Amino acid sequence: MLEKLKQEVYDANMRLPELDLVTFTWGNVSGIDRDKGLFVIKPSGVEYGNLKPEDMVVVDLDGKVVEGNMNPSSDTPTHTVLYNEFPDIGGIVHTHSPWAVSFASANMDVPAASTTHADTFYGDVPVSDPLTKQEIEDAYEENTGKVIVKTFNERHIDYNAVPAVLVSQHGPFSWGATPDKAVYNAKVLEVSAEISYHALQLTRDNIRVPQYLLDKHYYRKHGKNAYYGQNNAKSKDHAAHAEN
Amino acid sequence: MLEKLKQEVYDANMRLPELDLVTFTWGNVSGIDRDKGLFVIKPSGVEYGNLKPEDMVVVDLDGKVVEGNMNPSSDTPTHTVLYNEFPDIGGIVHTHSPWAVSFASANMDVPAASTTHADTFYGDVPVSDPLTKQEIEDAYEENTGKVIVKTFNERHIDYNAVPAVLVSQHGPFSWGATPDKAVYNAKVLEVSAEISYHALQLTRDNIRVPQYLLDKHYYRKHGKNAYYGQNNAKSKDHAAHAEN
Amino acid sequence: MLEKLKQEVYDANMRLPELDLVTFTWGNVSGIDRDKGLFVIKPSGVEYGNLKPEDMVVVDLDGKVVEGNMNPSSDTPTHTVLYNEFPDIGGIVHTHSPWAVSFASANMDVPAASTTHADTFYGDVPVSDPLTKQEIEDAYEENTGKVIVKTFNERHIDYNAVPAVLVSQHGPFSWGATPDKAVYNAKVLEVSAEISYHALQLTRDNIRVPQYLLDKHYYRKHGKNAYYGQNNAKSKDHAAHAEN
Amino acid sequence: MLEKLKQEVYDANMRLPELDLVTFTWGNVSGIDRDKGLFVIKPSGVEYGNLKPEDMVVVDLDGKVVEGNMNPSSDTPTHTVLYNEFPDIGGIVHTHSPWAVSFASANMDVPAASTTHADTFYGDVPVSDPLTKQEIEDAYEENTGKVIVKTFNERHIDYNAVPAVLVSQHGPFSWGATPDKAVYNAKVLEVSAEISYHALQLTRDNIRVPQYLLDKHYYRKHGKNAYYGQNNAKSKDHAAHAEN
Repeated sequence: MLEKLKQEVYDANMRLPELDLVTFTWGNVSGIDRDKGLFVIKPSGVEYGNLKPEDMVVVDLDGKVVEGNMNPSSDTPTHTVLYNEFPDIGGIVHTHSPWAVSFASANMDVPAASTTHADTFYGDVPVSDPLTKQEIEDAYEENTGKVIVKTFNERHIDYNAVPAVLVSQHGPFSWGATPDKAVYNAKVLEVSAEISYHALQLTRDNIRVPQYLLDKHYYRKHGKNAYYGQNNAKSKDHAAHAEN
Repeated sequence: MLEKLKQEVYDANMRLPELDLVTFTWGNVSGIDRDKGLFVIKPSGVEYGNLKPEDMVVVDLDGKVVEGNMNPSSDTPTHTVLYNEFPDIGGIVHTHSPWAVSFASANMDVPAASTTHADTFYGDVPVSDPLTKQEIEDAYEENTGKVIVKTFNERHIDYNAVPAVLVSQHGPFSWGATPDKAVYNAKVLEVSAEISYHALQLTRDNIRVPQYLLDKHYYRKHGKNAYYGQNNAKSKDHAAHAEN
Repeated sequence: MLEKLKQEVYDANMRLPELDLVTFTWGNVSGIDRDKGLFVIKPSGVEYGNLKPEDMVVVDLDGKVVEGNMNPSSDTPTHTVLYNEFPDIGGIVHTHSPWAVSFASANMDVPAASTTHADTFYGDVPVSDPLTKQEIEDAYEENTGKVIVKTFNERHIDYNAVPAVLVSQHGPFSWGATPDKAVYNAKVLEVSAEISYHALQLTRDNIRVPQYLLDKHYYRKHGKNAYYGQNNAKSKDHAAHAEN
Repeated sequence: MLEKLKQEVYDANMRLPELDLVTFTWGNVSGIDRDKGLFVIKPSGVEYGNLKPEDMVVVDLDGKVVEGNMNPSSDTPTHTVLYNEFPDIGGIVHTHSPWAVSFASANMDVPAASTTHADTFYGDVPVSDPLTKQEIEDAYEENTGKVIVKTFNERHIDYNAVPAVLVSQHGPFSWGATPDKAVYNAKVLEVSAEISYHALQLTRDNIRVPQYLLDKHYYRKHGKNAYYGQNNAKSKDHAAHAEN
C-alpha cells in the first residue's frame, strides 16, 4: 500500500540526520497522497539507524491509522490538521533543530534578514501564539496544528509563500509540495535562524530586508517568472532542487 | 565477573565520543548491579581509542576496587555517593561537554526553556552550590557527590524527574535507569544548554515553559500515561530509546 | 572547449562543500581565460553531488553563453561585471557562508581584527551599499556587480589587496588570481568573520589591528618581500597554497 | 638525522587537523633534542595532506637551518626564543584556532573559569602585551618570542604551570614536555576559550574558580601527589595522555 510514497517519506526522514537537523529520534516527516486522502508518517520514537521504508505508518485525514504495525509519530494529529487546512501541501517536517528552537524558546519570529531567507521564505517565519493551558491539556497535538493555522490566518500569511512556522517554546514545522521540499525548507529555516541570531547580536538596527529585495529573491526562485535553476534550460537533467 | 555489565558500561562510554560529548579522556560512565551491590566504571585517564570492555573496573558501594588492573576513574567516589543516595538509578555519566560546562562556569541553572528540555527534565537542571574550601581539600570527589545530593534535597528536586546536575564551576553529571539512559540524558542536557544559551541572548523575557507545558511534555514520555514511542504499540520491536 | 579551465573551475566548485562553505546549491565559482576573453562558470541550481566538469558553462565578457547545455549560474552577470572591471582577477566565488552572511545582514564590514585576517586581507572587508529599489528591479545581478565596484572605488580600496566583499543583506563574493585562490579567500573571510564576531561580543574596545601589524602580516605573504612559504626555498615542490 | 624526533614532530603536526585546530596551513609544531641543542619544525606553508616526516626542518638554537630542503616555518625565530628562555619545554605549537584567536583579538586573557581549564592551566592564560611598531618592523617573529617571555616574567607566571599564551591580536602558542603534550595543551586552550566565552555572555559575575579549586584540579593531574590516570596503577599500560 502506497509503497512509492513510503519510500519517498522514508528517504526524506533519512535526510534529517544527514542535514544535521535531528538528535536521537526528535524529528518526523510525512507525505500525502491527495487522491487517496491518505498520508504516510514515521513511526513514533524509532531511531533513524533502525528505520525501514515498510515501517512507515499510513493514516487517513481523520488521523486514524489505516495500515502499519507501529504507533505513528505522536505528532500525527498536528500533521492531520495541517493537511486538512493547507490543501496545497504534499509533505510536512517537524524537528528540534537547535537554532530554530532557540527562536521558539525566545518566542520570536525568525526575521527575513538576508537573501538566504528571502530565497525560500517570503517574509518572517512566524512564531505561533503560545497554546493555552486548556489547549495543551485537551488535545495537545491537534491544537498545535490549530494554533499554527490560526497564526497564519490572523497574521494574513500565505502558507505557500512562508512554508514554515515556529511553535512557541517548542520548535519548527515546515512543509512543501513534496516531503523532500519540506525537508529542504526545514534546513533553510535552520540556516536562516543561525544567520539572524548572529546579525541580531551584531547590531540594533533593523535587519529585515526591504520589500523590493524580498520580492526580487523570492520571485527569482518561485512563480512563473522564476529564472534560477534549470527549469528553462536547454537540458532539464539536473533540476533536482533548483526550483526550491 | 559482571561481564555483561562491563560490556554495557563499555558501550555507553564509547557513545560519549560518538555523541560529541567528550574531548580526550574527559568523561566516564558507570553502571550498577543492584543485587550484587557492585558497580562497574571506566578506568582513569584512558583514551577512548584504547579502551576495552575488560578494562572496566569493579567497585563496591564503599568505593573499594573489587576487581580490575587499573585505577578506576578519579570521580569514583562521586559515583559511589550517588549510587548510595539515589537508590533508583542504574547508571551515571560525567562529561565536560562545553555547553553544559558554560552554565556551570556561570554558576547558573539550565532553564527549562523549551519542550526539548521538558521531554526529559521535569524542571530546570540545577547548578549545585559551590564546594567550600574545606570540602575541596578534605575529600573532594566524595564531597562532590554530597553537594549534588544536598542540592536536590534543599531545593526539593526529585532526582528521578530531573536526572542531571551541574556541579558549580565544574560540569555535568547525569544518571538514569541504565548507563545508556544516563548517556541519553547527558546529550539532552548538552542540547538543552545550547538552546537556552541562545534564547537567553535573544530576549530578556522569562524563557521558562509554563507548568502545564512542562507537565504535558514530561508525562508524554514518562509514567503510566506516556504515549510517545512504541511501548503501547502492536509491535514492540523498535522501542529502543522511545521511553527516554 | 577550455577543457583544462572547466576542470579547474569544477575542482574549485567541489572544494566549497569540502570547506563547509555551502549548503545545498548556494554557491558558485568561475574562472577566466583572459587571452580568449571567455569565462567558465557553474550551472545554476545544480547539486554538488551531481556536478561534472563538462557541465561548466562557457560565457563571454558580454555575459552571453558561448557553450553549454545548461543555464549558467543566475549570478553570471555579477561575475561578468567583476571580470570587466577588475582586470587582474582570474577567478570569482560566491557563497552564502553563514558567518560572512551574518555581517552582510547586519550591514557591517568585517573588521581586520587579527593577523588571521591581515595575512590575506589588507584592511576591513567592506560591506557594499545596499542596492536601491531601481537597481534591484532593473538588472539585479548586473547591478550587484556594479555596486561592488562602486564600493571599492568610493572607499579607495584596492581589489587586489582586499579580494572580497559583502553584498549588503546578501552575502560574500571573493576573487583571486585563480579560481582556487578565490576559494581560499572565501574560506579566510568566513574564518575571519567568525573570529571578529566573537571578539566584538567580548569587548567594546577597537579590535582593529594597528597599521604596522597589518603591513607586517600582509607583506609577509604578498609582494616581492614575501617570506612565508616555499617560494624562496631550495625546493619548490610544496608551494601549493603557500603564496596565498 | 633526528629521524625519531622528525616522526614525532610530524605526528604531532598531523594531530592539529584531526583536533580541528587548523585551517589550511595555519599551524606548526616543533620538538627539541636538548642534548644535541637542535629542534625540528614543520616547513613553512605546506599543506597537511602533502606533509611527510622527512620534510621536517632541523634548526639549531641560534635559529639556523642545519638540515632540510625547505624553508622552516616563518615562526621559527619565535620557537627559537622560547626554547632558549623556557629550558624545561620539549615541544611548541602555534595555531590560529578560532576561539583562542577571538580572545587574542579582544586582547583578553582566557580566564580560569572552570575545572576544564584548571586541570591543565594553573591560572588564566595570559594575553601578551601588543608588540610595538618598532618590535614588529625590526625582527617580528623573534620579538614575538621575546614579548611572550616578558609577559610571563612581568606577571610572575610560571611557564611550566601555564603552558600557553595568546599573542595579542595574533593567536595562541602552547608548549609542553613533548610535542604531543604541546598539542594537547593547544586543544585544552581552545576548549577553555570556548567555555569562557559563553560563560562571559551568560553572566557579569566573576567566573574565575577560587584558588583552592584551582589548586585541587591542577594538582590532581600534576606533581608528585597527582592521582588522576594510571601512573600509580597496578598496570601502567594505558597511561598515554593520563598525566597531561
